[in-house]
Amino acid sequence: MSKEIPYKIYLEENEMPKQWYNVRADMKDKPAPLLNPGTHEPLSADELSAVFCRELVEQELDNDTTYIDIPKEILDFYKMYRPSPLVRAYCLEKKLDTPAKIYYKFEGNNTSGSHKLNSAIAQAYYAKKQGLKGVTTETGAGQWGTALSMACAYLELDCKVYMVKVSYEQKPFRREVMRTYGASVVPSPSDTTEVGKKILAEHPGTTGSLGCAISEAVEVAAGDPDYRYVLGSVLNQVLLHQSVIGLETKAALDKYDIHPDVIIGCAGGGSNLGGLISPFMGEKLRGEADYRIVAVEPASCPSFTRGSYAYDFCDTGMICPLAKMYTLGSSFIPSANHAGGLRFHGMSPVLSKLYHDGYMEAVSVEQTSVFEAATQFARVEGILPAPESSHAIRAAIDEALRCKKEGKEETIVFGLTGTGYFDMVAYEKYNDGTMTDTIPTDEEIAASIAKLPKVD
Amino acid sequence: MSKEIPYKIYLEENEMPKQWYNVRADMKDKPAPLLNPGTHEPLSADELSAVFCRELVEQELDNDTTYIDIPKEILDFYKMYRPSPLVRAYCLEKKLDTPAKIYYKFEGNNTSGSHKLNSAIAQAYYAKKQGLKGVTTETGAGQWGTALSMACAYLELDCKVYMVKVSYEQKPFRREVMRTYGASVVPSPSDTTEVGKKILAEHPGTTGSLGCAISEAVEVAAGDPDYRYVLGSVLNQVLLHQSVIGLETKAALDKYDIHPDVIIGCAGGGSNLGGLISPFMGEKLRGEADYRIVAVEPASCPSFTRGSYAYDFCDTGMICPLAKMYTLGSSFIPSANHAGGLRFHGMSPVLSKLYHDGYMEAVSVEQTSVFEAATQFARVEGILPAPESSHAIRAAIDEALRCKKEGKEETIVFGLTGTGYFDMVAYEKYNDGTMTDTIPTDEEIAASIAKLPKVD
Repeated sequence: MSKEIPYKIYLEENEMPKQWYNVRADMKDKPAPLLNPGTHEPLSADELSAVFCRELVEQELDNDTTYIDIPKEILDFYKMYRPSPLVRAYCLEKKLDTPAKIYYKFEGNNTSGSHKLNSAIAQAYYAKKQGLKGVTTETGAGQWGTALSMACAYLELDCKVYMVKVSYEQKPFRREVMRTYGASVVPSPSDTTEVGKKILAEHPGTTGSLGCAISEAVEVAAGDPDYRYVLGSVLNQVLLHQSVIGLETKAALDKYDIHPDVIIGCAGGGSNLGGLISPFMGEKLRGEADYRIVAVEPASCPSFTRGSYAYDFCDTGMICPLAKMYTLGSSFIPSANHAGGLRFHGMSPVLSKLYHDGYMEAVSVEQTSVFEAATQFARVEGILPAPESSHAIRAAIDEALRCKKEGKEETIVFGLTGTGYFDMVAYEKYNDGTMTDTIPTDEEIAASIAKLPKVD
Repeated sequence: MSKEIPYKIYLEENEMPKQWYNVRADMKDKPAPLLNPGTHEPLSADELSAVFCRELVEQELDNDTTYIDIPKEILDFYKMYRPSPLVRAYCLEKKLDTPAKIYYKFEGNNTSGSHKLNSAIAQAYYAKKQGLKGVTTETGAGQWGTALSMACAYLELDCKVYMVKVSYEQKPFRREVMRTYGASVVPSPSDTTEVGKKILAEHPGTTGSLGCAISEAVEVAAGDPDYRYVLGSVLNQVLLHQSVIGLETKAALDKYDIHPDVIIGCAGGGSNLGGLISPFMGEKLRGEADYRIVAVEPASCPSFTRGSYAYDFCDTGMICPLAKMYTLGSSFIPSANHAGGLRFHGMSPVLSKLYHDGYMEAVSVEQTSVFEAATQFARVEGILPAPESSHAIRAAIDEALRCKKEGKEETIVFGLTGTGYFDMVAYEKYNDGTMTDTIPTDEEIAASIAKLPKVD
């Protein structure tokens, strides 16, 4: 096989996936169920339907159906910004002088600037189909909020975004993008919810956290029958929608008979990583192929590498379901010094189970080395990457340099989830040489782990 | 012919243009030559070579060669971010309920956020080939400066950017992108040049202008034998490089047997418009086909629609060559209220000649209606457009609505030059309802036209 590989592999429209792939169907040992935070019993579809749309609840609980049809309306929306290119990093390979072959799946070529749109349109679609008036959500760095705003504008759904206050203030441009798409954006914690008022009373000067913004968005949705809550990561349904990334990647690789040795993705809540690896993980679970699969997380928020595998709340307000996952504890807040996203205290239950069962590796990287990799990548490959995505770049470069040392011609595939156009404050710090690293101490992690709920 | 048209038409790598097209070769009446500002004689290649790279001077003066090979190194760089998609605006058509078919050539899927990269890599390549140490340039809104920084980083050339002071201060993120790519960015006017010092002495509080930043960048390049000056628009060489936009557009249309009726582009200095229309204009000049070709400019800087066709300086410092073009006078500065780019007082001499000879139309549009079109487009087509590009969107929507009124099934193609991620201050004004329009009075335009140099 020696077909010449182009710089960018684009699938034709008729080669795009028409079904999502549900990796849970191929897991012999299923991820642990979500629990009612009061009774500690598995949550029923009815209970979940108070917060989530009906069809999304079905997807959330479905551990058995391998392929789920993508509705035509979502396929049409996907056609506006997908397929995303699988790029051969010829210039990076040359710069590193490595025998490794490097590919990246670039999800940043849409206005949300990331892969988040893949699930946003799906969740908005099911809300619209159910006849709802709108949805609520939280956003941290703003990629998810932007994606959801875009999806809601397209479907003419109302969209309320609770934005972590520190981001709301530091990223006014993200906020304006959401407003341009017609969303209402509220800095969190706010006095528009009970949980927000409570948190403000306890911590008057707080600049907020993702867990807190989740609590507010859930409270609003639970209190209005015309609204539901939607979430951009962690959940099983999100990984299902994001499988479109991995399915496209696999189709593009197959088209050129390329077999990856290592697949790398950054991991915050797991939406990108879970989507990217899903069909490859499926082959691994079914014993059809083997791959090294590597999750990359920030050293300042190391849930896989330093967290506990345990039931925990997804939010600070402790009103969300309990999920069994690798977690640093729902009271853990990464250092304000940490510039990128990937700040969630927990991790997708599906990925947590797969990691626990030995199907994946995980590494943590420090932010100055992440921005070093980002800058090196930008200068040779042209694309200015998001800090989140740059975690995967760091690991991919490290793997390519290992290949160089060992003289191995391995094929590396990584997920380039998005662009860094709204992260220039962090780049400025790096350019000025004032960026530093912060790694939580064992004591800090132990303290928040000690507050995990007791579940038998 | 009823081949189904996909949402996005991508050319294969081997279908990408391998030559630029020089529209001047097909013009029976050539554009007027550049003149020496002192002697008013046509500039020789030797004179121009003090400021520009040798091969670029050849391209600048070449009115005869129809096709010019794109060097392999530039083709390779193009493959990193090209071909750009030709998008069928199905969703916009549906929203407008128009029988018109709308296509746009989207040049924003690269980190510079615009088409400017097409010429930046070419100009940087020839500078590198000539053994120079670096290049100087000016930038206003920042798209050109970013593009040049990217090209220079890739080729490891030094890059000095004079950035109009008001943009430097209002767009710190653009500045940081350039710094991330290793460029040095100086707010203009500055005390690093004689012309800058002079302007600062005369206008102590000035926030600068494009014409002034050009003067500074030219002075620096002219004073150092290892540097040359490069410019992102107006020049013949730039239109030549940008022909890649039109050639790709035409190849994509031909692939599906689509014949456009109207071709629309925004026009500041003319780099995008000139590139987009070039092969279509060639057919028109050779009598092989007919198209309506429409330039769209801001009502606040209306060089085509309200300027004079005359010799003028390209810069404020009056050290640049004289070009015969539609101009508002080199002392004209658009109102600070004008938010988008397209602020140059003049227009490409090639486009000016074609417009003067009746091969093109021109319209001007006001910025509130431009942002209205931008927002409407963003919500249905997903992409958040640059204010510059949105001028073309405004005109395309207006044409589509005319088609609806007249019941005509015309095919409209417009250039979507870039994204608006760094223009959220302007979007915020529009979202807040505080954006207004400013149109120069006849007296204002007459006053700057009166200062045009006297050329026989």
